[in-house]
Amino acid sequence: MPDESEIISKIRQRARKTNSVIVGIGDDAAVVRTSDGKDLIVCCDLVVEGVHFRRAWAPPKLIGRKALAVTLSDIAAMGAVPRFATISVALPRDCSSEFIDEMFEGIFELADSCGVSIVGGDTSSSPDSLFIDSTLIGECERGRAITRSGARAGDMIWVTGDLGASALGLMLLEQGVRLGESEPSAEIAERMRWQAVMKHLAPDPRLQLGVALGERGLATAMIDISDGLSTDLSHVLDESGVGAVIRAGSIPIASCVAFLAAGSSTVDPLQLALHGGEEYELLFTALPEAKAEIEELARELGTPITTIGESVIGGGIQLEREGKLGQIAAGGFEHRIS
Amino acid sequence: MPDESEIISKIRQRARKTNSVIVGIGDDAAVVRTSDGKDLIVCCDLVVEGVHFRRAWAPPKLIGRKALAVTLSDIAAMGAVPRFATISVALPRDCSSEFIDEMFEGIFELADSCGVSIVGGDTSSSPDSLFIDSTLIGECERGRAITRSGARAGDMIWVTGDLGASALGLMLLEQGVRLGESEPSAEIAERMRWQAVMKHLAPDPRLQLGVALGERGLATAMIDISDGLSTDLSHVLDESGVGAVIRAGSIPIASCVAFLAAGSSTVDPLQLALHGGEEYELLFTALPEAKAEIEELARELGTPITTIGESVIGGGIQLEREGKLGQIAAGGFEHRIS
Repeated sequence: MPDESEIISKIRQRARKTNSVIVGIGDDAAVVRTSDGKDLIVCCDLVVEGVHFRRAWAPPKLIGRKALAVTLSDIAAMGAVPRFATISVALPRDCSSEFIDEMFEGIFELADSCGVSIVGGDTSSSPDSLFIDSTLIGECERGRAITRSGARAGDMIWVTGDLGASALGLMLLEQGVRLGESEPSAEIAERMRWQAVMKHLAPDPRLQLGVALGERGLATAMIDISDGLSTDLSHVLDESGVGAVIRAGSIPIASCVAFLAAGSSTVDPLQLALHGGEEYELLFTALPEAKAEIEELARELGTPITTIGESVIGGGIQLEREGKLGQIAAGGFEHRIS
Repeated sequence: MPDESEIISKIRQRARKTNSVIVGIGDDAAVVRTSDGKDLIVCCDLVVEGVHFRRAWAPPKLIGRKALAVTLSDIAAMGAVPRFATISVALPRDCSSEFIDEMFEGIFELADSCGVSIVGGDTSSSPDSLFIDSTLIGECERGRAITRSGARAGDMIWVTGDLGASALGLMLLEQGVRLGESEPSAEIAERMRWQAVMKHLAPDPRLQLGVALGERGLATAMIDISDGLSTDLSHVLDESGVGAVIRAGSIPIASCVAFLAAGSSTVDPLQLALHGGEEYELLFTALPEAKAEIEELARELGTPITTIGESVIGGGIQLEREGKLGQIAAGGFEHRIS
């Protein structure tokens, strides 16, 4: 592991300074400026080696990228624009200079592509595992943040993208499947495995749609799917004081999940889509009359979206499957590795 | 270690909601509101068990308190008012529920006393060590943050409190001295040891004076002493493009350092005061004509301050001792335990 001051000096050089960053890395604190009349959105996510990831599973760039991506996803779920980030890392002694550079490159590349300035952080050695804590500050118009508590009975329930691939990717990684040095071959099963693993290792937070829903006030409640559709939907329902009916046939199942399940006795696509975590897709509720505008917006942004059900009076989640309704419990999968 | 959702639920109940916290802990992110026309001050500090502290050295309340105190000290050093904090912790399996509660109580007590709202955070298990990362958001009037780069030749150099005790406290802890269950006896050496250890384990960030210097524009540059007077003064000099002459006889040496040095061949009070880290005192520069106003302000706030020298044209630190000038190098002590 290189000297801490060396690491900080490199990060300082790499950090982009914009007009809103008055004082960047290198002082006791950063000084940043937001526009008047905005609310600040603040969140952080901590990832720990051996708990949330393994170094052997991904190149350092993807480890860094994902550490920031999961926090960006929280900002997206508030309908806010991410602006500034701080990154604290505790580095085991066996982290090489190259590893650290690449990990930070993964963080910076994603930050740059989202217009986020890295304005501070802290580094320390670590007696054992690699720790990355990222804190994000975003902004939105006053009073326009989309919380988990605004869903009302009769709202439609929407989800972005498709589901199940991240949990499948984790299963594959645990079975020894690796990304490999190059893009996968044309062989379909190999491509499908690659897709699942990439969904797990390189999630793309749905920032554009999140911000647009916030700006236009189109969603009544929103959350990102980090713990799984059933668990995260339960959070929204609990905070909003409503229940939900969702249709099994409407839940968008990732094609790699559908494909790989066909040749497997252990993979149940619907269970993966319902309970698999770390999807970093958005789950939101909206008034039925907003349907056309939401669909038009998603089309413009190229974000796939699906309605999977409605919120109803009462509590809990009912799953409609082959014409029958059954209560389902939140959770099922544990998305943490152990 | 209790379940993460249990820990978060307790923290959520404990967190004070104020008018400026629109959405607190429990959503994807917090929503907070600052006044228009302010700059935001953002910083974070990561403390790692076995690197920055040992669990055997302090009650959990002081471990939590210090994790927040060191970050508050950075906000003070910018002349800003701390407002919001997030806390991420990675908890080893052998952390009991009581330990975690007390650690957070230490964080909350200090936050409450400083008017800081804890608005978010993340918890994880940790394979080995305890990690605490605290991120602070403060605010000050636009353009009024006090950086390290504003010192000019001719400015007076000031320091709050007295120096050397924290490094001595660390030495004593490493030698096996402990705080004990109760306040120390009247025995003078015991009281002096207790003072040194407490300075190390329970530093008090100089928030009031920091904010007041910022609001009145009285300091030209400021930093908090975390790495030691010589190192932190060097940071200010380097960023400002000036040098300094400091007088050995003016450097305020903590009474416990002076007392315990008298009976020791290994403790050099001046060396400890010059190079000892983790003081969390403020070091600032100011125009000579501001002297009376600064002294009056410090008296009002009850903060001891001392002028230790002047900034000069050139670079580096010259120490005036017994009528002779000699260049001194930054550093000397490593404030990290290993």
